[in-house]
Amino acid sequence: MSGRLYVIGTGPGNPAQMTPEALAAVADAAEFFGYGPYLDRLSLRPDQIRHASDNREELDRAKTALTSAVAGANVCVVSGGDPGVFAMAAAVCEAIDHGPSEWRNVDLVVVPGITAMLAVAARIGAPLGHDFCAISLSDNLKPWNIIENRLRLVAEAGLVIALYNPISKARPWQLGKAFDILRDVLPAKTPVVFGRAAGRPDERMTVARLADADASSADMATCVIIGSAETRVIARETKPDLVYTPRFIKEGAR
Amino acid sequence: MSGRLYVIGTGPGNPAQMTPEALAAVADAAEFFGYGPYLDRLSLRPDQIRHASDNREELDRAKTALTSAVAGANVCVVSGGDPGVFAMAAAVCEAIDHGPSEWRNVDLVVVPGITAMLAVAARIGAPLGHDFCAISLSDNLKPWNIIENRLRLVAEAGLVIALYNPISKARPWQLGKAFDILRDVLPAKTPVVFGRAAGRPDERMTVARLADADASSADMATCVIIGSAETRVIARETKPDLVYTPRFIKEGAR
Repeated sequence: MSGRLYVIGTGPGNPAQMTPEALAAVADAAEFFGYGPYLDRLSLRPDQIRHASDNREELDRAKTALTSAVAGANVCVVSGGDPGVFAMAAAVCEAIDHGPSEWRNVDLVVVPGITAMLAVAARIGAPLGHDFCAISLSDNLKPWNIIENRLRLVAEAGLVIALYNPISKARPWQLGKAFDILRDVLPAKTPVVFGRAAGRPDERMTVARLADADASSADMATCVIIGSAETRVIARETKPDLVYTPRFIKEGAR
Repeated sequence: MSGRLYVIGTGPGNPAQMTPEALAAVADAAEFFGYGPYLDRLSLRPDQIRHASDNREELDRAKTALTSAVAGANVCVVSGGDPGVFAMAAAVCEAIDHGPSEWRNVDLVVVPGITAMLAVAARIGAPLGHDFCAISLSDNLKPWNIIENRLRLVAEAGLVIALYNPISKARPWQLGKAFDILRDVLPAKTPVVFGRAAGRPDERMTVARLADADASSADMATCVIIGSAETRVIARETKPDLVYTPRFIKEGAR
């Protein structure tokens, strides 16, 4: 009989942001598959087996986990943040879709988690307080012309934009280009939040105007949130500024 | 000296999806402000005070909570799901933005939670596995023509769409009209997920094709997720179908 295959999210890295449901899945599993730094967030027992793999080997990792589950083990595939947002749940579904028929009968349990944009938003106010979108800036996943088109359309639509995978050593120019595209559509004063490592000891939150936003303010651990024309900044004397997007949009706005 | 003002999310209603961070905020607060059914999700001590208010009184609730915090109490404003997604964090920021200057010095702590679309996505596979957006269908919050424009643009952009506040007694026709608009842009077979009360005892998940999607399948407790042209359904013999959006988009797609 097949084992159960959990796909969990650890949240952004603050242990207090990992749900009891995810912890229960960890307690129930015998084998763990994931990117090493995400597995490091778990407190495993000596009898639990750890299979760390590189961040780019998602489909192979999913297949290996499914094979173990079919063989009868309870296994746990581990993502940072939420497993359904640019993470392992889609890789596991892809593997099932194109894999042997017995993989379809595995007891798949996806456990949601706090995704980066929600953690960043909470630390800065409420920038996602009205309509918003999440876009991965990785052109490993889709052609760059599609990313450009999406950025233009969502900015024209007036949505706040959360950018995942904004920059890496292999993708150094894409975020700067994204800012250029958005400057054609959005006001110069539109707030841009660089939310790095939200909730972790090395957290760093900075806010810029779109006109001045500098891609070098982001690294691989950063989620970038670009406001809409409605998004506002509240200056505070004794505390960091707040950024929020109002709940209401008046007649006549875009 | 001012007290602390927490704004927390309970998650979608399954106690195992509420974070330790949110529970710690509850333990630290003396007064609680929120919509009654959300306050009902908390286990309060006899010394903790509950101020339930109607779902439509968000700004008044935020002002009352800020007033209590300035007077020195640790208070907790309670949202369902995540407080930053169509919920109380934006209402509290609005109140601070337009309120007396001492409100800016309140120690505001927003605690993220599992928002409905993540919980629904987890129960059905990985429909949010690539770029996606969250749009409130409530035309109490913005003019209907803006909603129509946003739906068209995000569908043209190829984003998966999570609809919050899809339907209510006062807004009976909007979801059907939204489906009509999306049918002009998206393929007839695009999967539509009606995710009701994810993780709660009265959970109900159904999947339709966009061509056949019926607005009466949704109620106020439903988050509706409409796929992109890339979104796929995996039929399973012994289990419910899975819905997922692949991580990769090939050259030549939109």
